[in-house]
Amino acid sequence: MNITRLSSRQPDFEARLGKLLAFEETADEKLEATVAAILADVKKRGDEAVLEYTRKFDRLPLADAAAMELPKAELKAAFDGLPADQKGALEQAAGRVTDYHKKQVQVSWNYLDDDGTMLGQQVTPLDRVGLYVPGGKAAYPSSVLMNALPAKVAGVAELIMVVPTPDGVKNQLVLAAAYLSGVDRVFTIGGAQAVAALAYGTDTIPKVDKIVGPGNAYVASAKRRVFGVCGIDMIAGPSEILVICDGKTDPDWVAMDLFSQAEHDELAQAILLSPDESFIEAVAASADKLLAQMARKDIIRTALQNRGALIHVADMDEACRISNRIAPEHLELSVGDPKTWLPKLKHAGAIFMGRYTSESLGDYCAGPNHVLPTSGTARFSSPLGVYDFQKRSSLIQVSPQGAQKLGEIASILAFGEGLQAHAQSALYRKGK
Amino acid sequence: MNITRLSSRQPDFEARLGKLLAFEETADEKLEATVAAILADVKKRGDEAVLEYTRKFDRLPLADAAAMELPKAELKAAFDGLPADQKGALEQAAGRVTDYHKKQVQVSWNYLDDDGTMLGQQVTPLDRVGLYVPGGKAAYPSSVLMNALPAKVAGVAELIMVVPTPDGVKNQLVLAAAYLSGVDRVFTIGGAQAVAALAYGTDTIPKVDKIVGPGNAYVASAKRRVFGVCGIDMIAGPSEILVICDGKTDPDWVAMDLFSQAEHDELAQAILLSPDESFIEAVAASADKLLAQMARKDIIRTALQNRGALIHVADMDEACRISNRIAPEHLELSVGDPKTWLPKLKHAGAIFMGRYTSESLGDYCAGPNHVLPTSGTARFSSPLGVYDFQKRSSLIQVSPQGAQKLGEIASILAFGEGLQAHAQSALYRKGK
Repeated sequence: MNITRLSSRQPDFEARLGKLLAFEETADEKLEATVAAILADVKKRGDEAVLEYTRKFDRLPLADAAAMELPKAELKAAFDGLPADQKGALEQAAGRVTDYHKKQVQVSWNYLDDDGTMLGQQVTPLDRVGLYVPGGKAAYPSSVLMNALPAKVAGVAELIMVVPTPDGVKNQLVLAAAYLSGVDRVFTIGGAQAVAALAYGTDTIPKVDKIVGPGNAYVASAKRRVFGVCGIDMIAGPSEILVICDGKTDPDWVAMDLFSQAEHDELAQAILLSPDESFIEAVAASADKLLAQMARKDIIRTALQNRGALIHVADMDEACRISNRIAPEHLELSVGDPKTWLPKLKHAGAIFMGRYTSESLGDYCAGPNHVLPTSGTARFSSPLGVYDFQKRSSLIQVSPQGAQKLGEIASILAFGEGLQAHAQSALYRKGK
Repeated sequence: MNITRLSSRQPDFEARLGKLLAFEETADEKLEATVAAILADVKKRGDEAVLEYTRKFDRLPLADAAAMELPKAELKAAFDGLPADQKGALEQAAGRVTDYHKKQVQVSWNYLDDDGTMLGQQVTPLDRVGLYVPGGKAAYPSSVLMNALPAKVAGVAELIMVVPTPDGVKNQLVLAAAYLSGVDRVFTIGGAQAVAALAYGTDTIPKVDKIVGPGNAYVASAKRRVFGVCGIDMIAGPSEILVICDGKTDPDWVAMDLFSQAEHDELAQAILLSPDESFIEAVAASADKLLAQMARKDIIRTALQNRGALIHVADMDEACRISNRIAPEHLELSVGDPKTWLPKLKHAGAIFMGRYTSESLGDYCAGPNHVLPTSGTARFSSPLGVYDFQKRSSLIQVSPQGAQKLGEIASILAFGEGLQAHAQSALYRKGK
């Protein structure tokens, strides 16, 4: 395998790194027009349009709109029918994810100022959330847990899942995960038509306040377009891992960690930073050795050769600086003393600390969410969490005494801005 | 003035309400194409493009790129030159806004599970934020405080403000507010070119991680387009107020509160809900009486006649239900016992409780932010806050013992999803 080698000593290193990281989705005008038309059609014709698209795109011969919904008993049957080891693993993962996310719950607060004016913030859950789950090969039960459980922990009253079932093929693990996470209703629809149904509502599909979950380019485009009508989560780019290693982790482990990212798809990005040049070559040798035994070796090879890199750095300090420059989705800090370096790491979706913490443990069951900011957006955004399913209202209750002082300040500033009604409204309260 | 009267007893009330609230921005293709071209040009040519657009659109004869920046001394001079009452009001407002926002700071946390595995969340501020401030009539110093202070409380290291100064005209109150809020650098540029400069960076304008602040349609379009390259705040629609009144507040007060929203612009929306029909007519009479004395009476009249409404409801319970349906930006709960009704109010940007709490007090100086979700988006979003300038990284440090259990669970789930490298990477840790 021919994985790109870079060194921070190269005079054009920053330019090479920039080129390696560059990823720009090209706007597909035909796709955009198709999505716009589907959204407008579902908004206008509701169930009828959703049924038509589902029959056409998913080849699903639905008798009527009611047939889009899966009975709850079918979800339970999927869960009950799982092999014992899968059932147990799913339950343990769900338990750990729930425990972790409970720590993220935000609560209302308020205080009184010296004049007896009450100021605060009321935190409430969203009423109803839509969860998009892809059909086919990218349908991951773990993803159902990671999207559904934080919503449930937040207290979302109704969680509506949509999942396309092309040709009627259902993923039993996905249905089982939906059952286990407490999803309230499941509809077998997908694509832009499912996003439209959730955003605008139809006679059958309830209108939601926010749509979360991964999807293909049509789904991503539809989500972008309905943003504002409802909330959406982030739009994910290709998945990435950055491993920082001091050179003392088993090179097979590090190679397999890089593989675990690369196996997602050909655009996935896996990068190693190490101050130990001989370790870098050991990891490359491990990768060559291990590749043959991998079921998804073609995807892994393509991803690593096109977008992977093994980067030699001067020292751990420099590794941390470069990591902050990259702001990776997944950051493995595969070193003996990860807590020493943590304070220097500013931007990353999730940080996997120490040699035992493979990314895959976090993907499934450690507890934190696996929906993370990609493409450097960790500079300004966060993992999916309970906070994405809660919102805040500011609270202000001005006391008669407070109204005197605040009325004075507000009226001066309002007159300064030429807003007379603002000033007068404040002065009325000051007068009394 | 002819303000629409509605009653919840009308059989077609919901349809009428829906029509009243409907607001859809029509996509302006010419504007979109212009903005796309400006963004591409600034991305490619940097300072040179920004200078050209600024000379052309703002008629600003800048000698070179360095001339785009205002010296810090000029900000200080603007502040020092304010009349004493304005200076004092600005300082007191800034103090109160800072105090309130300090309560919003989120802190890192972590815990150990039974196996000694550490799980947590690291909270860090954004490195660098861009603040857009409009030029001309919509330039509000209070808006500078409301956007800049939460960023500073969050610990943002560098806050870059852009403000267009068409024909070289500077707003001294805006510069004074920038000085007072600790803005680090100010550039006199605006429009889509300023958004592009902040998002992509130029030789002179530093690239930022997030852009916040209001702007015209060009600015809003540019912000939407650079989202992903950097973060953006919400895109605001027309401003709105909903007043719920039990009929016992001075009708002049309520009329002036409706005016204070309506005076913003012709599209602003002001609605009153009351179970007291005679009070509704008293407010209408107050509005007619007070209108003549308002400097912005034409704007107020247009807004109230086109988009305002006085709505008679059955009782306070119904008022709360309708308020949740509307999810207003500003909600005045002008009643004697606001705490009784608060638990029933789920969706609102800010809730102004009690007869003394006019919205204008909150706009300027009570403490909470005045940047709030509009157009019903309070169903799923929150006021601007310190949390918008902080982000989180998940932390996971799996203990050798924990790796045994987690490796087992993760490998079962990974094999279930057909991801062999994920499974193998987990099993390596389990084995040791």
